[in-house]
Amino acid sequence: MKTPFPLAEVYRLLEPGPVVLLTTLRAGRANVMPMSWHLMMEFTPPLVGCVVSNSDYSFATLKTTKECVINIPTVKLVKIVVACGNTSGSDVAKFKTFGLTPVVAKLVKAPLITECYASLECKVVDMNLVTKYNFFVLEVVKAWVDPTRKKPRTIHHRGEGEFMVAGRTIHLPSPKTSLGGK
Amino acid sequence: MKTPFPLAEVYRLLEPGPVVLLTTLRAGRANVMPMSWHLMMEFTPPLVGCVVSNSDYSFATLKTTKECVINIPTVKLVKIVVACGNTSGSDVAKFKTFGLTPVVAKLVKAPLITECYASLECKVVDMNLVTKYNFFVLEVVKAWVDPTRKKPRTIHHRGEGEFMVAGRTIHLPSPKTSLGGK
Repeated sequence: MKTPFPLAEVYRLLEPGPVVLLTTLRAGRANVMPMSWHLMMEFTPPLVGCVVSNSDYSFATLKTTKECVINIPTVKLVKIVVACGNTSGSDVAKFKTFGLTPVVAKLVKAPLITECYASLECKVVDMNLVTKYNFFVLEVVKAWVDPTRKKPRTIHHRGEGEFMVAGRTIHLPSPKTSLGGK
Repeated sequence: MKTPFPLAEVYRLLEPGPVVLLTTLRAGRANVMPMSWHLMMEFTPPLVGCVVSNSDYSFATLKTTKECVINIPTVKLVKIVVACGNTSGSDVAKFKTFGLTPVVAKLVKAPLITECYASLECKVVDMNLVTKYNFFVLEVVKAWVDPTRKKPRTIHHRGEGEFMVAGRTIHLPSPKTSLGGK
């Protein structure tokens, strides 16, 4: 069960670079695509930049509806993640086909994915680099995390069908929230 | 020892979201800062987007020289990474203080870090979002990787002094280079 998560801590979910599942909704049709090309851009309000290729079915929906959800899966879902990447929303109803459970979001129309341990409701706030790079700037407006998942085994894409699975955690005292030294 | 690495495969190094060490050089003074806010934007030529805060010492150098090197450390260097993040290049000569060894790059003036397993020489190609988000678009013009490091134990920042260390690798056959489904 997911509960609300502080927006100011969203960077802690995305900075490690997990593969995410981006959900969108248009004309009653929900879609889901895996994505690894994303970065944090601001702590608060949390801004996330991402590349969604104009050859992807989700591109037009994101550009038109200006809403999406970033869902973070763990290694249990890796086969579904790959299957979502190897099919197109133009042909396949992915939620149904791959057994994913949509849940109504609070502030956007795109659905949360129940099976993912975290979900971030997002609105597009800047499309200045969309034409040149397919690059969207999103603002996270609502965040949900399963509080029982302290060390989620996120997956990290290395290309060519290879994934790194999140390993051990180490803790080093640091006076700064950000790594950003100087 | 690092050897040249194909530019078209640079995404395989950065997509998993490792903490990187950004090096810059101005007026004979080299600096190094850790960074987790980066993403791939294009396969070839490889484009990388990153946020370098205007409160960081490296910001002015990057904006002026339009050159840097993205170096990828492994867990052996984690204490140095944190130390680089908790000091400023305005006060500290970080290469010397933290025992890092600079090596002359091929196509840019900023140095490679010997102790990192991979180094990517970069030139700034787009500063349109710098004023608003401190967001730079870089082109990787030369890549170097230690070919003996097949499963590098990269580190992945989770905030508040917490790091995830790259764990096991799994391989799933995929017809696509990109995850980017649709």
